[in-house]
Amino acid sequence: MSYSWYNGKIDLTENTRISTDDLGFLRGYGLFDYFRTYNGRPFHWEWYWERFNNSAKLLRIPLTLTKIEAESILKELLSLTQMDDVAFRFLLTGGDAPDSATMTKPNLLIRAENLPSSSLEIFEKGMSIITHNYTRDIPEIKTTDYKRLLSLQMELQEKGANDVLYHTNGLLTEMSRSNIFLVKNGQIRTPKSGILKGITRRTVMELAKPDFQITESDIQVEELFEADEIFTTSTNKKVLALTTIDGKQIGNGVPGTVSNELLSRFNNLINNW
Amino acid sequence: MSYSWYNGKIDLTENTRISTDDLGFLRGYGLFDYFRTYNGRPFHWEWYWERFNNSAKLLRIPLTLTKIEAESILKELLSLTQMDDVAFRFLLTGGDAPDSATMTKPNLLIRAENLPSSSLEIFEKGMSIITHNYTRDIPEIKTTDYKRLLSLQMELQEKGANDVLYHTNGLLTEMSRSNIFLVKNGQIRTPKSGILKGITRRTVMELAKPDFQITESDIQVEELFEADEIFTTSTNKKVLALTTIDGKQIGNGVPGTVSNELLSRFNNLINNW
Repeated sequence: MSYSWYNGKIDLTENTRISTDDLGFLRGYGLFDYFRTYNGRPFHWEWYWERFNNSAKLLRIPLTLTKIEAESILKELLSLTQMDDVAFRFLLTGGDAPDSATMTKPNLLIRAENLPSSSLEIFEKGMSIITHNYTRDIPEIKTTDYKRLLSLQMELQEKGANDVLYHTNGLLTEMSRSNIFLVKNGQIRTPKSGILKGITRRTVMELAKPDFQITESDIQVEELFEADEIFTTSTNKKVLALTTIDGKQIGNGVPGTVSNELLSRFNNLINNW
Repeated sequence: MSYSWYNGKIDLTENTRISTDDLGFLRGYGLFDYFRTYNGRPFHWEWYWERFNNSAKLLRIPLTLTKIEAESILKELLSLTQMDDVAFRFLLTGGDAPDSATMTKPNLLIRAENLPSSSLEIFEKGMSIITHNYTRDIPEIKTTDYKRLLSLQMELQEKGANDVLYHTNGLLTEMSRSNIFLVKNGQIRTPKSGILKGITRRTVMELAKPDFQITESDIQVEELFEADEIFTTSTNKKVLALTTIDGKQIGNGVPGTVSNELLSRFNNLINNW
């Protein structure tokens, strides 16, 4: 069963209901964060908490919950679910607005969610994606704004693609819910601006540093098709190779050695978390 | 009392609650429309219904309700509120997504709302606003995306401004929830692209046409400060003069004769609606 904490009260997620006055619902004024546990311990909780606080500050929604209160809520939700590992979603909105417009007392939701079922197959074959010219509003914040991705669902299906890689007039930024890395001659590069700085991105950069040259830099769309390998990183994708972009094969069409090495390092880290 | 219709069921708005799986709430995948009645009759209902349908199509959320069904819901909600006039809000989202990501059966909310209390004073003095470089994502759709406006609330307060006028790198588009018109030497101009085409904008253009030259064109920010008068149009603002922009006085600092004339024509229209 999935449980949620909403403005101080814990209940089954299906019984947790929000008002139609909520400014996240009415006005898209909301931000979130999402992470998971490994071996019952939230993965890089300190970093996620810091980022969630920073998003709240940048979007100017006051967050009054303390870190210690949050930790005790996570513990209680995890124990209620009776699962070994869960994903946690924090979602903060501008609160219920009787006038549909003015921020009131913010609403905070913390959901314990089932982990998504992931297939091993995608890690063996890699992912097929398309590129799309789009710049997220305030990209350094993890807002709830995914309308562009959702409105592209049909196009993705038609093209047999699983996800979308955004660029701003040719300058690569990020995928819809993950970061991207290019490998060329053993050197690794990742976009430096216009992105949400992922915790998995940060983790993988640390895992790579001892043995690889890894730099943050501007990258153009055309460079995708000259790369030896490309991979993406996120909480759920871990380190996942991109083998087809806009219908064109990347590298030799299978996950490359650098991608596999970093996935292996990441798996080691989480197995021992 | 305010009543809502949600996915087929009518209840008090305060008892109408949505799931935390709703994609409008979780992922900002929602669109809406808003209009009001005059003398108990929805104002320009045909135009609003057409626009709402068009927004749904562009954002790729199926709308299965028919116009006749919608009309019967409006009638029932109006009669339940026991008020002479109300505002109606339609809000359509991608539905409840158990996986937090994939569109399911869309959720449709229709709320009857109290009309906002409007002061006569603002029509006599005009409005003070600020300009802001921002382009709405998919501006021709009335999405629920108002996070930029809401995150600017503190800045607006500090500057004593009531609202914000957006431009794209110097090219004027629209205000946060209304359209804009400039008057110079008796000629009226309004931005032609990057905007939501307001129903009040359309109405006012029709009211102006017999006696004024009125054109849709590109307008630069600097032209604001050379205008004789500027006004904005929306369901709630009707025809409202802008007398201060970025702290600078527009024209002679009071609502001008063209603004007043068009407001008077608009008031005539709604009084006889």
